[in-house]
Amino acid sequence: MTEKVAIIGSGNWGSAVAKTIGRNVQHFDHFNREVKMWVFEEKVDGQNLTDIINTKHENVRYLPGIALPENIVACPDLIKTCEDATMLVFVVPHQFVAGVCKQLKGKIPKNCKAISLIKGIDVNEDGFRLITDMIQDALGVRSCVLSGANIANEVAEERFCETTIGYRNKADGELFRDIFHTPFFRVNIVEDVVGVELCGALKNIIAIGGGLVDGLKLGDNTKAAIIRIGLYEMRKFSQMFYKDVKDETFFESCGVADLITTCAGGRNRKVAEAHVTTGKSFDVLEQEMLNGQKLQGTSTAKDMYNILSKKGLCHEFPLMTVIYKICYEDVPPIKIVEDI
Amino acid sequence: MTEKVAIIGSGNWGSAVAKTIGRNVQHFDHFNREVKMWVFEEKVDGQNLTDIINTKHENVRYLPGIALPENIVACPDLIKTCEDATMLVFVVPHQFVAGVCKQLKGKIPKNCKAISLIKGIDVNEDGFRLITDMIQDALGVRSCVLSGANIANEVAEERFCETTIGYRNKADGELFRDIFHTPFFRVNIVEDVVGVELCGALKNIIAIGGGLVDGLKLGDNTKAAIIRIGLYEMRKFSQMFYKDVKDETFFESCGVADLITTCAGGRNRKVAEAHVTTGKSFDVLEQEMLNGQKLQGTSTAKDMYNILSKKGLCHEFPLMTVIYKICYEDVPPIKIVEDI
Repeated sequence: MTEKVAIIGSGNWGSAVAKTIGRNVQHFDHFNREVKMWVFEEKVDGQNLTDIINTKHENVRYLPGIALPENIVACPDLIKTCEDATMLVFVVPHQFVAGVCKQLKGKIPKNCKAISLIKGIDVNEDGFRLITDMIQDALGVRSCVLSGANIANEVAEERFCETTIGYRNKADGELFRDIFHTPFFRVNIVEDVVGVELCGALKNIIAIGGGLVDGLKLGDNTKAAIIRIGLYEMRKFSQMFYKDVKDETFFESCGVADLITTCAGGRNRKVAEAHVTTGKSFDVLEQEMLNGQKLQGTSTAKDMYNILSKKGLCHEFPLMTVIYKICYEDVPPIKIVEDI
Repeated sequence: MTEKVAIIGSGNWGSAVAKTIGRNVQHFDHFNREVKMWVFEEKVDGQNLTDIINTKHENVRYLPGIALPENIVACPDLIKTCEDATMLVFVVPHQFVAGVCKQLKGKIPKNCKAISLIKGIDVNEDGFRLITDMIQDALGVRSCVLSGANIANEVAEERFCETTIGYRNKADGELFRDIFHTPFFRVNIVEDVVGVELCGALKNIIAIGGGLVDGLKLGDNTKAAIIRIGLYEMRKFSQMFYKDVKDETFFESCGVADLITTCAGGRNRKVAEAHVTTGKSFDVLEQEMLNGQKLQGTSTAKDMYNILSKKGLCHEFPLMTVIYKICYEDVPPIKIVEDI
């Protein structure tokens, strides 16, 4: 049968993958050539963003300078975007997932499959929930996840990198690989949705640690040790809460590679470094340095610390615990190498 | 019984670990307090280096500015250094191992155990041999290996890092951990001598790859991908030639952490970057940039390529293969992301 892809979201990352998906569906007979992309309508210089995308074939607002294939059709209506789709690509900010699913419930084909490109987890009073589980529970569709060492603009510019798709059903994994894989955006698929998804969330905590070590000027070996211990705690945490998470996943792009790149660049690292060198709090630095964006590493550290402390497990995760305390309890940054 | 440690070698790394060993043996009842260190005698400002070390308690030549414990006794005679030792720490340059073993043969106690801190492997016409195997075969003693993300001066300055000891016999691993482990030099022990030792040799090839990507200015994600693929090929190579090598070893300091730090700093990375930016050959750059030191990454790449090509396995190791070709066959550096 023919698969039809819909992209839910059209920000920087959504537009970058739209370029790849739009091209790839043309290479295979088993995909419908048209790919609708849901765009939250807004005006740019008095014009609808959807009209600009559909005439200029460029998302001038969120991915300027990159041509989108003409078979990518921007659509301001979520239901119309998805009603005939068999493959849904979720690439909206984390806080919009529940609302999107609510609108789509009952409006999508029965044979639909999903993939989440969303980083983060949904924390609640009882613990946390994976985004793929939210999608599966809300829509009754199986959801894969895609995560890796990927920066939207670098992918759009076709600089070589890799990514990982976690699947529950191998056929789903292979179908989604078909729409994402290129010679410069290499996709590996692994049977481990949970492991791939947790890597994407937990790495931001460790990136805070990397930034602290940079600020303390402890050198490359100390930083490598923090990254290694971070990878170890990410794996231990994942396998403690989900016993089927595989070791192998942490060798994939979503694991070790994404962790390395997040600890080398990115805003979590940068703000943590500034915390050491300026002595200012993370709250103040977030306002000064991030221009309205939120720091994921500190909030994820807090979420994980709450879970660990409720369960009496902090001593088993000394690195995540000390990073939380440095962020929120005025513990001196040097404790990162003393308390672990 | 009481163990007696001898350190064979007194260069930068040997002197750094002498500081740790000299202190640690004093903390345990099961070690003799005196630790002899073999020093290849030389004159420094007209004085014997051994005399300087034994009076000033500082290796002014190879680790200036770091106080050595007074129970470290420099000795210019190899046999006298080792004749009553039960734990031998090998920390000489790779090319001296065979000669040292030849001299020691039959002169050391029967219950002796060894550990190699030497990076590299012994390549010959038939393939290659591990340094620990050379020591075991020549002296009839079991040999552990120590390798990790460690720079001698940083360890001597007590900056936090980790290291890995690979053992065949757990009691050996624990004894050697006792003499190396400190709160700022964390030792993990693993039952995998071969894996630990091969990590230390193969990482230098991947560091050439990291430097090429830096020179090409491809960005953090491409570099993370090269490091990840490098780690994958290191593991695959090790397990192809030695089936008992464990996955877990590559999560240790000797694996992922040492690879990260070697790709972040170090001379292999630096010269490879210069190869891209200047267009000069590795031979020329080695002479211009390294002040007489040799580049291990290129020679190890050549050794591994010879082994792989003889066995018809190059296609299974595309990254190591293309790095060899960039180093020795004038292949353009950009091929690193095209050929893998």
